[in-house]
Amino acid sequence: MEKVISTAVIKRLPRYYRYLGELRKKEVVRISSKELSERMNVTASQIRQDLNNFGGFGQQGYGYNVEYLYTEIGKILGLDQEHRVVIIGAGNLGQAIANYADFARRGFDITAVFDVKPELIGKEIGNVKIRAMSELKDYVTKQKPDIAALALPKEYAVQVANDVVSWGVSAIWNFAPVELRLPKHVVVENVHLTESLMRLSYNIRAAQIKKNADTQKNGKDSECAATTE
Amino acid sequence: MEKVISTAVIKRLPRYYRYLGELRKKEVVRISSKELSERMNVTASQIRQDLNNFGGFGQQGYGYNVEYLYTEIGKILGLDQEHRVVIIGAGNLGQAIANYADFARRGFDITAVFDVKPELIGKEIGNVKIRAMSELKDYVTKQKPDIAALALPKEYAVQVANDVVSWGVSAIWNFAPVELRLPKHVVVENVHLTESLMRLSYNIRAAQIKKNADTQKNGKDSECAATTE
Repeated sequence: MEKVISTAVIKRLPRYYRYLGELRKKEVVRISSKELSERMNVTASQIRQDLNNFGGFGQQGYGYNVEYLYTEIGKILGLDQEHRVVIIGAGNLGQAIANYADFARRGFDITAVFDVKPELIGKEIGNVKIRAMSELKDYVTKQKPDIAALALPKEYAVQVANDVVSWGVSAIWNFAPVELRLPKHVVVENVHLTESLMRLSYNIRAAQIKKNADTQKNGKDSECAATTE
Repeated sequence: MEKVISTAVIKRLPRYYRYLGELRKKEVVRISSKELSERMNVTASQIRQDLNNFGGFGQQGYGYNVEYLYTEIGKILGLDQEHRVVIIGAGNLGQAIANYADFARRGFDITAVFDVKPELIGKEIGNVKIRAMSELKDYVTKQKPDIAALALPKEYAVQVANDVVSWGVSAIWNFAPVELRLPKHVVVENVHLTESLMRLSYNIRAAQIKKNADTQKNGKDSECAATTE
């Protein structure tokens, strides 16, 4: 339990979980690491190695039991417990998060949404009423949500993050394009959209450079490869 | 130019760029790798190593020229060229992307948004009118956008991705929770929100386990650490 799992493995676990969920829906009972590997575009030995971090689960010559592996990875991901989430910021992004049905299915329960704009307060998104930011402190201290999702402009994100942490929140899902400096016990997961778009831009340029180089080399247009995860 | 840059480096470049942009705004002229390292929570040697991939930029005893490094990293990221982006899906997420001012500043120009819903078609978001999906083929073949952002339900994402690629798009920014299998020359960048939330959940659980272990060990509550990038 004390073993440190690399972030690369942690990054792949939700993908395994998603695939296994799809297989389960199709009532597939078992799958070999080879088949799983082809679907996921990860080598079979990588899959075995990843899952060995958590004690294996596979049986030689049988492969993986889909239902069992799905349930166990779910537990590793902490999806066997409910998470109550408050969303701070009810703009388009906050509303997109609040309306995303996938989250509820995974046990992430949006319990409240907050905004400063008077025209938004009182409106319903999902099944949840938008509350005034002035109610945030009272709500957080009393209801003790597990996660605060920050979907507000970066000018306010740092202060609001510090506030909710001081009121007891210990997990932040941060959409604001800013680095949060929070106490060590606080878990932060960032979704930086501009950075994602820049990685796309980098790879577009890299593909162009490769294409040009190939063209020069071959004296003609050729297929070239560039994909990112 | 043919050198393969690791995805970890590519992942950090946008962060360097964002920091340098902030320094530039504050009219900071130069910065040492040590200072940059403290701000970015990356070791100074990591920074030197990362930037050496692209030929260095630093001068012993002087540090980095902020403006120069900002411009050069911008070029590496392909931000010195304009990118025309179409958004497919004008729900909350599509609208959030369309309204995100940060993108325009970085040279990502939203030129069109498409949706199937009659009540959305003709409405304006950002400065762009929402068009009918039936116009997509004609638009893409004539206007040749650089990037298609897929902000539509996963049931449609695979087909639409295949379509736009067959009409000439070679870069996809995918928000649908599905793996796209596209020709090798197509660049794909995924934003999988549910997976991000699962990583947060994993780290919440890991922090709890650590906390419990520490408590048992020390016979009392203690501070514990768990942060992710």
